[in-house]
Amino acid sequence: MSQFDNVSVVKRANVYFEGRCVSHTLFLADGTRKTIGVILPSTLTFTTGVPEVMEGVGGSCRVRLQGESLWREHAAGDSFAVPGDSSFEIACDEPYHYVCHFG
Amino acid sequence: MSQFDNVSVVKRANVYFEGRCVSHTLFLADGTRKTIGVILPSTLTFTTGVPEVMEGVGGSCRVRLQGESLWREHAAGDSFAVPGDSSFEIACDEPYHYVCHFG
Repeated sequence: MSQFDNVSVVKRANVYFEGRCVSHTLFLADGTRKTIGVILPSTLTFTTGVPEVMEGVGGSCRVRLQGESLWREHAAGDSFAVPGDSSFEIACDEPYHYVCHFG
Repeated sequence: MSQFDNVSVVKRANVYFEGRCVSHTLFLADGTRKTIGVILPSTLTFTTGVPEVMEGVGGSCRVRLQGESLWREHAAGDSFAVPGDSSFEIACDEPYHYVCHFG
């Protein structure tokens, strides 16, 4: 599916790393929070509170989870999971569009 | 209202000017299309097809419409209208969050 239906969307964007990552927060009908966003060409380190699943919906990236040495390639159509209270590095050569699922 | 309810949202972002402007497209229940987005610190020129109303929901900007000499200040809580088949320059010193209404 290329879109979410029957959701609430917060008008203000979330801006991280001086705009290298921009997302909008949405809530499903059952209250579940997700963010949809894009990471622009850059290499960034994100920290997690709760566990996250990052689902690619456009572009591609390379990801290295905290404590790992291997960078893994991810693209539209696949996902990667990040534990809670952790971090990951993400490197993008093109805009990487994602949905972030929490918990 | 800080959010839209009961809408459909396109997962992929719209990325303009190498990411100086990022928006997401949404559709109200009646099919009306809007975009919610953010313009990062920069001075950009946008062209319009259909008329647009830009509603500020965070931050501020200065805007000069095509054919005008005056720059006008706009902030969260106010709006400016741009004719169709026209253009406007927008200068932001901080992220300017907006809802764009079309037609």
